[in-house]
Amino acid sequence: MESIVRNARREDMPAVLALIQELADFEREPDAVELTVTALQEDGFGDIPKFHCFVAERDSVIVGMALVYFRYSTWKGVALHLEDLIVTRAQRGKGIGEALYRRVMEYGLSHNAKRVQWEVLGWNDGAIRFYERTGARVLRDWHVVHMDEENLSEYCKKK
Amino acid sequence: MESIVRNARREDMPAVLALIQELADFEREPDAVELTVTALQEDGFGDIPKFHCFVAERDSVIVGMALVYFRYSTWKGVALHLEDLIVTRAQRGKGIGEALYRRVMEYGLSHNAKRVQWEVLGWNDGAIRFYERTGARVLRDWHVVHMDEENLSEYCKKK
Repeated sequence: MESIVRNARREDMPAVLALIQELADFEREPDAVELTVTALQEDGFGDIPKFHCFVAERDSVIVGMALVYFRYSTWKGVALHLEDLIVTRAQRGKGIGEALYRRVMEYGLSHNAKRVQWEVLGWNDGAIRFYERTGARVLRDWHVVHMDEENLSEYCKKK
Repeated sequence: MESIVRNARREDMPAVLALIQELADFEREPDAVELTVTALQEDGFGDIPKFHCFVAERDSVIVGMALVYFRYSTWKGVALHLEDLIVTRAQRGKGIGEALYRRVMEYGLSHNAKRVQWEVLGWNDGAIRFYERTGARVLRDWHVVHMDEENLSEYCKKK
């Protein structure tokens, strides 16, 4: 049984959302996903898509996905951001994750990205080892900061 | 002397690039900036701008800037990313940085961003205290990962 990686289509979004949920569970944030299939379809497949998605299929079933979009580095210029990459648990260890990862890197290179970047949980040693083996660098002195919707609205109310 | 925050214009990009360089020096990466004024002008002011920039002026001189663009969270949807915010050293401590920060938050809110996010150096205690006071959260367990241009090209060559 061969697995293939291809561009996602609008009708793949239910399977993609299920994978997003599986990743959130793994990242110990099972209640964090507020996105819907409709939102994914509108946001990814409108006139100006907000992201690009790849899916991995095995025996015509979607077993993995990677979702990317472009960012802008004030040091380097256009950068590709890898937001999520996941292979469903039962299909791991078969090279499907690396096939998705490679496709993302090739997409970045072919779009002249000056960098591909993403975020990783500090305890995810397996992932970190893999990234470093491919030439990526974990910037341990940089942290991610979030102002969530509720606090954003609170902050903007104060003067 | 009053300071004002306004949308940047194409002709502001030389001053903006000088501020980007000043921030890179502060972040101990003085040689990291490869971007040019021409690239900033093309990328920020074309048909599909790759970023949005605000500048702070004092006595008609640009003394600070903030640069943002939209990202896509697979948990929340559209998020605003704050890539850089800087006030030139001689003009700090006058509330200009907070005025830029507030403008960024208001921009996010008015564009229905589900989150505003950015990255901070772990040793930048002053910035972290400020962010937390405004309601933002530093995610200390998440790290940033970069695949730079050279390693990207190397990786894509191997099979």
